[in-house]
Amino acid sequence: MKELTNRIKTNGRVLGEGVLKVDEFITHQVDPELMEQTGKRFAEVFKDQGITKVVTIESSGIAPAVYAAQALGVPMIFARKSKSLTMDEELLTASVYSFTKQVSSTISISRKFLSAQDRVLLIDDFLANGQAAKGLIELCQQAGAEVAGIGILIEKSFQDGRKLLEDMAVPVVSLARIASLHEGKVSFLEEDA
Amino acid sequence: MKELTNRIKTNGRVLGEGVLKVDEFITHQVDPELMEQTGKRFAEVFKDQGITKVVTIESSGIAPAVYAAQALGVPMIFARKSKSLTMDEELLTASVYSFTKQVSSTISISRKFLSAQDRVLLIDDFLANGQAAKGLIELCQQAGAEVAGIGILIEKSFQDGRKLLEDMAVPVVSLARIASLHEGKVSFLEEDA
Repeated sequence: MKELTNRIKTNGRVLGEGVLKVDEFITHQVDPELMEQTGKRFAEVFKDQGITKVVTIESSGIAPAVYAAQALGVPMIFARKSKSLTMDEELLTASVYSFTKQVSSTISISRKFLSAQDRVLLIDDFLANGQAAKGLIELCQQAGAEVAGIGILIEKSFQDGRKLLEDMAVPVVSLARIASLHEGKVSFLEEDA
Repeated sequence: MKELTNRIKTNGRVLGEGVLKVDEFITHQVDPELMEQTGKRFAEVFKDQGITKVVTIESSGIAPAVYAAQALGVPMIFARKSKSLTMDEELLTASVYSFTKQVSSTISISRKFLSAQDRVLLIDDFLANGQAAKGLIELCQQAGAEVAGIGILIEKSFQDGRKLLEDMAVPVVSLARIASLHEGKVSFLEEDA
């Protein structure tokens, strides 16, 4: 998506190999207009897929997810992150390993909000190694819900996330695909959506 | 706001004295249309106040805040919650005490996103004892930014939050004001906005 790649070029900052900071317009300070555009784009791509719920993970996924859900006319759910696994039969839970922080955390969604009748569109801000997305897919699977696809704002195409998700037969739609972050410079792959 | 109070009557759940659960449409599963209505209402109330930034705190405040920011044509910033105080001169930080959990946590905003030129509208989902709001106000004060007011979805008017904020000369606009949660029943005060 041109608006997003342009914005990354203007306001993204490369901090060492592999790290792209977009706290100016996505992950801390948020540009509502850009987030609406991304949400509408995801809704357009998935409009004929019978989506019943949009699911994301707190916190940076919430803004694009709420606009996607609004455009699709369905509710949005944000999975909660917590430090420890709480045993609670009312919760769907999955463990997510962070390669950056080298710790596992638990994400959860209330069981009552997802069922076997649901077709889910997942949304997240970044796709790197795909561990967070995998956790969200596991939550949906526990509920018997079907995952129609995942919408990503920024894909680090030099990492393994897309392959992991495609191996799980989950279609990936990324609005910006980054080929590399060498020497402080963002290089994009062809655009996906 | 009629749409919000009606929704609380229909989908809110009172869990013991003082606890109102709205995870069906605000704090976990989110109703995008309702959030847009609340955001637009806040924007309407503060439209002549010269607001330059909307500030909230992750995670439940993000959806109403992004719609308010969009309607006002300004960026939204969500403060981060973290466990421990990290000393970092690039961050504005404040300590927030939770009476429920009896622990203090630290909230922060990158210094570069708030300055003495800013007039801030704060947004949060709940106002109870006002500690989170007070923390957000402190972050703004550290930056020299002016707080024009705070927009709240649900005010627990039987707690001290409103008084605390009004004593700090911060105008409070709450879309639903709850007089009591006795015996599993939600009683509203007159509506504020």
